[in-house]
Amino acid sequence: MSEQIFTYGAPGLKFGFGASLEIGHDLAQLGARRVLLITDPGVAATGHPARIAEVVRAAGIEVEVFDRARVEPTDGSLDEAVAFGRETGPYDAYLAVGGGSAIDTAKAVNLLGTNDGELLDYINAPVGRARAPRNPLKPLVAVPTTTGTGSESTTICVLDVVALQVKTGISHPRLRPTLAVVDPELTLTQPAMVTAASGMDILCHAVESYTARWFGDFPAKQAAERVPYCGANPIADMWAERSMSLLAASFREAVRDGGSRDARHQMALAATFAGMGFGNAGVHIPHACAYPIAGRVRDYRPPQYPDAEPMVPHGIAVSLTAPEAFRYTFDAAPERHLRAARLLAPEADAADGPDLLPTVLAALMRDIGLPNGLGAVGYGERDVDDLVTGALHQQRLLATAPREVDAEALSGVFRGSMEHW
Amino acid sequence: MSEQIFTYGAPGLKFGFGASLEIGHDLAQLGARRVLLITDPGVAATGHPARIAEVVRAAGIEVEVFDRARVEPTDGSLDEAVAFGRETGPYDAYLAVGGGSAIDTAKAVNLLGTNDGELLDYINAPVGRARAPRNPLKPLVAVPTTTGTGSESTTICVLDVVALQVKTGISHPRLRPTLAVVDPELTLTQPAMVTAASGMDILCHAVESYTARWFGDFPAKQAAERVPYCGANPIADMWAERSMSLLAASFREAVRDGGSRDARHQMALAATFAGMGFGNAGVHIPHACAYPIAGRVRDYRPPQYPDAEPMVPHGIAVSLTAPEAFRYTFDAAPERHLRAARLLAPEADAADGPDLLPTVLAALMRDIGLPNGLGAVGYGERDVDDLVTGALHQQRLLATAPREVDAEALSGVFRGSMEHW
Repeated sequence: MSEQIFTYGAPGLKFGFGASLEIGHDLAQLGARRVLLITDPGVAATGHPARIAEVVRAAGIEVEVFDRARVEPTDGSLDEAVAFGRETGPYDAYLAVGGGSAIDTAKAVNLLGTNDGELLDYINAPVGRARAPRNPLKPLVAVPTTTGTGSESTTICVLDVVALQVKTGISHPRLRPTLAVVDPELTLTQPAMVTAASGMDILCHAVESYTARWFGDFPAKQAAERVPYCGANPIADMWAERSMSLLAASFREAVRDGGSRDARHQMALAATFAGMGFGNAGVHIPHACAYPIAGRVRDYRPPQYPDAEPMVPHGIAVSLTAPEAFRYTFDAAPERHLRAARLLAPEADAADGPDLLPTVLAALMRDIGLPNGLGAVGYGERDVDDLVTGALHQQRLLATAPREVDAEALSGVFRGSMEHW
Repeated sequence: MSEQIFTYGAPGLKFGFGASLEIGHDLAQLGARRVLLITDPGVAATGHPARIAEVVRAAGIEVEVFDRARVEPTDGSLDEAVAFGRETGPYDAYLAVGGGSAIDTAKAVNLLGTNDGELLDYINAPVGRARAPRNPLKPLVAVPTTTGTGSESTTICVLDVVALQVKTGISHPRLRPTLAVVDPELTLTQPAMVTAASGMDILCHAVESYTARWFGDFPAKQAAERVPYCGANPIADMWAERSMSLLAASFREAVRDGGSRDARHQMALAATFAGMGFGNAGVHIPHACAYPIAGRVRDYRPPQYPDAEPMVPHGIAVSLTAPEAFRYTFDAAPERHLRAARLLAPEADAADGPDLLPTVLAALMRDIGLPNGLGAVGYGERDVDDLVTGALHQQRLLATAPREVDAEALSGVFRGSMEHW
């Protein structure tokens, strides 16, 4: 029997220019007297977390700051944050300011500040013991400072388990932030390449969740088997479609003119909408492939990223296989792929067919200055087998694809992604 | 300065045929060991509450039942329910099964089961003392059995204060249910006239929130002044538009063929979507007018309603002034009124203009067998002044209208609503 039921969950939202100035009030409403603000060093350098801490203190709330969240959290970095939270706690709320890394770190600190045990108890099987939290978590207010993460809407904390060289996560409905405060003001200084990369992350959240396997095409689940990511569904569709329309109207402009308040507003809205959608439907092949693309980087350094270490930023890593992945999934749901393409590029004059969405994506990526395929970030044919092996580890994501994804399929996707134009 | 910020909140959702069979699991996940199920006598007679109580007990959870929620709650009926809850409590979760009356009653029982004081402490000023709850509330799972209420998505409990002959409410974000369980199975036996009336309530939730004053057209508020109903906004718009499309596809069929599982599924989805939208944007003139229309009924008895007392069901009361109200608000946002009409009736061949939406609504109301205007439920010209006085009490709703609404405007709306076709 096929599944009849879908689920939906979302954080509360406060959205708009100036929204971050009200966080003291919002935390007080949540009953907070003492909160832990979690951020990372790069975001701390922008001054936003310090300004937000002042706003919260002005509401009579005590604020401790942990500013050492790691970009791309590891078990070690989360252990350090958790230890800080446990030593300096108890807190009655948590406040994350930053990208997905800061927000995910706050989820882990909240989980282990309110529940006993260690990280490994809660990490997804087979790496961890997949225990559900016994106690309710404290309120978590998430303030995304890059338009792209989506972590403010999701129930998952992603981490690298270093000893095993594997990317995995902790996933439970209680991890979802209580309130997302999205203030486009915080994104005005984002460099063009960061806007381009994180914008592609938004786009992939929207298009992947929109083309995900339909919830009703999974076998029926028992109540206890349900997961937050239930496949494409009528509610996630709506968020994804609206996000794509917003991207069509504002993405190129936000990259070209970062000072455009209109474009920043629209992009922040697009990010929020995509997060609300994929936070329930899930993502698939491009996100699965992004893990090894980011993880096996040799010497690629993206322009305008302050960090001097070699890295493929998440949004770039996700985008590089997207055109080819959607060519592969086209047959499973042609009308959805065509509709996504038409929403993203209402003026596109290419004919309907499997190439339309890849063509639209490649044109966009070229316009906003992204690297031209895997080749441009240092990968070649010789790397395909390793990349395939890495992507195959992401079975949770691959199971959300609208058609079967095996090693051969992934190999085709990686080989077809070496150069896009 | 005009408002820059909008807010959004929603319950978690489990949707689909069979969803109500999993409530025991859901309550256990929320940490419940002992819950109070709240319903009304009419819904209790359908057997759904007893079946749901069994499902919950099968999950090892103790269930007390209060089945005397009043249809259209009063301060007296809520006091009785609250007293029952306090005497038989404590509970660690509440479960409402029924329409808006049962769900609103559960909100009051939850509020006063977790916070001290009495009803009047929390009722909106000037009738009550408008106190905010000091303590968090317990989880509330809402199971709507009629497609229409929307209470499963909102932060408000509506009641009549009998001594003052006034309809008012309690409104606070903490009143919003934690989880809405929407199972179209529960609506299959709904009589055609109930489907028609409650469907018009859905439609008015969608169209009123869609045509509500834009959030950015209000003066800027301080954080503490924000209310859950913030006017039309990009998120509420999306829900409303989708709800109208669902109604266009399924409303007439659900009335004609109540056994159509497809139509029931779509109508349940339309109700949920409309609730998610108006629960944040608000509603305006038709809902304000519905209060005196229902409150001053003389001898109208709707066909197929089991209750023998004279009454104008909420959905009918809301619909009766809708065509004329939207003729009045047309000039404030012509493109929204036209878009609503085109979404509700893609095939309508009338010309664009102030009459299009009223024409679409009147045709629908005629097709589904609703009374033809205020005249058909017993009102005449002589009642207009009284109806206007009653509607003017609903200032919170009227303030959400896209243009100024005074006595003269309301008088025009009521006079124009005596007969629609």
